[in-house]
Amino acid sequence: MRIVHFETGGAVGIAADAGSGWHGLTRRDGGFPGTLPELIAQGADLVRIGASLAQSPAIDLDAVRLLPPVPAPPKILCVGLNYDDHLEESGLNRPVYPEIFARFATSLIAHRAPIRRPPESTALDYEAELAIVIGKPGRRIPRDQALAHVAGYSLFNDATIRDFQLRTPQWTMGKNFDGSGAFGPWLVTPDAVPPGAHGLRIEGRLNGQVMQQSSTDKLIFGVAALIEMISVAMSLERGDVIITGTPGGVGAARKPPVYMRAGDVFEVEIEGIGVLSNVVRDEADAT
Amino acid sequence: MRIVHFETGGAVGIAADAGSGWHGLTRRDGGFPGTLPELIAQGADLVRIGASLAQSPAIDLDAVRLLPPVPAPPKILCVGLNYDDHLEESGLNRPVYPEIFARFATSLIAHRAPIRRPPESTALDYEAELAIVIGKPGRRIPRDQALAHVAGYSLFNDATIRDFQLRTPQWTMGKNFDGSGAFGPWLVTPDAVPPGAHGLRIEGRLNGQVMQQSSTDKLIFGVAALIEMISVAMSLERGDVIITGTPGGVGAARKPPVYMRAGDVFEVEIEGIGVLSNVVRDEADAT
Repeated sequence: MRIVHFETGGAVGIAADAGSGWHGLTRRDGGFPGTLPELIAQGADLVRIGASLAQSPAIDLDAVRLLPPVPAPPKILCVGLNYDDHLEESGLNRPVYPEIFARFATSLIAHRAPIRRPPESTALDYEAELAIVIGKPGRRIPRDQALAHVAGYSLFNDATIRDFQLRTPQWTMGKNFDGSGAFGPWLVTPDAVPPGAHGLRIEGRLNGQVMQQSSTDKLIFGVAALIEMISVAMSLERGDVIITGTPGGVGAARKPPVYMRAGDVFEVEIEGIGVLSNVVRDEADAT
Repeated sequence: MRIVHFETGGAVGIAADAGSGWHGLTRRDGGFPGTLPELIAQGADLVRIGASLAQSPAIDLDAVRLLPPVPAPPKILCVGLNYDDHLEESGLNRPVYPEIFARFATSLIAHRAPIRRPPESTALDYEAELAIVIGKPGRRIPRDQALAHVAGYSLFNDATIRDFQLRTPQWTMGKNFDGSGAFGPWLVTPDAVPPGAHGLRIEGRLNGQVMQQSSTDKLIFGVAALIEMISVAMSLERGDVIITGTPGGVGAARKPPVYMRAGDVFEVEIEGIGVLSNVVRDEADAT
């Protein structure tokens, strides 16, 4: 089941696709079940609600404005250095423990919204990633129960202002420019992918050229391990997002480096989840 | 003006002290203006609302349960290595740019709530800090206008699980254990302290013994500089919290190290703002 959060004509809506196209409702319609982020916050059964939308009107996703699946997550936890080939190109040691940094909601944009290239830097890089959305809260979640805490999966472009990221050992600044974190297009419920979204091809493409290509079975810390290890420290809450790290091939590691410029299009694709596509705009020109 | 967020008998309340003791209302009372976090989120004039509470009933703060001034900030931005003496004891280089890491709301506790010592570690350290609460949103805020974006100041004990903090270069895990971040007791509006809370004595005491002592005039990046520099990357929002860093004297840098144990009491005091006091409890015993 794919479920999308969108806005049209000033009203938010929800649509689901169980294989026969997108059907959905907006808040103005009778029987509206709530938005995707509202349903996640309530711990609702997304597959059941998605199925119930099949009798609703067809929705043309090209005619509405998509929103991030969770626009204001309680936590956005990003995992660094979680694929061996990205570790190698970064020249850093293999982590013995997940390398976690934070994004904040002010950085999020949706599918098809422009990635904003700030005037302060030309070092705007891409990072194709698998995103996990938490649906069931918990602390110290055992690994063998971890996947029951997943509401679904999505795609993320953890676009990075590299020079700001590396100005200090903590990466927070370069990972939090407004309009740098593309998230979507939709949520895919766990029943639609292998357990832990394991073994899925992941690809990052710049203007159609493959820049990153790997498989989620190469994650050093996989979905269940991340949930287990992060929840040792902190309670996971409904709507929390874990962004699992990027494979090798980022722009900064290339010789010469490849950074994104206005007009570039970057796509993140994961097999069975979808394609997240965003154009780059200079911030002065982005709306 | 000091303004406090509290709960009593199942109702949240607000009280203010302009010098003649605490007076306030709960949500059950007529004329309730809203809670402190609600008012901050609305961009309300806190000094005016605080003054209007002077005719309300007296509130005994010892008879209510205090809550963090903002229990769920959109962002909690912590500044590392922002006092020279803490830099020296950490053996790290002087940052050329603010070293920012994140906390999440799941780590927050209020004044008088127990700091929770998890069973996974004995390396529970203290860090006395000045907290800034943002009242006016903005991006790329010029330094000379930055102080107009401050709703007020408070105290923070950025308690840290040192071994988890240092397992990986990113500090997020060791800074986000549930129940590790003490925040309060109240908000002090900017009119009650010098501009930028500059030149105030800051002290951290463990069981009454002074462990940290400095002045906010020793901040490498002061209040206005932090607001200016952080907002280059990200929009600051109402209710965002910036925790400005800790002076020297942390437990991990002592020989032998001094870590907090069950029954210990740590106090953060900043001149003109107040005293934040928390007892340490082993997590199994904390409620």
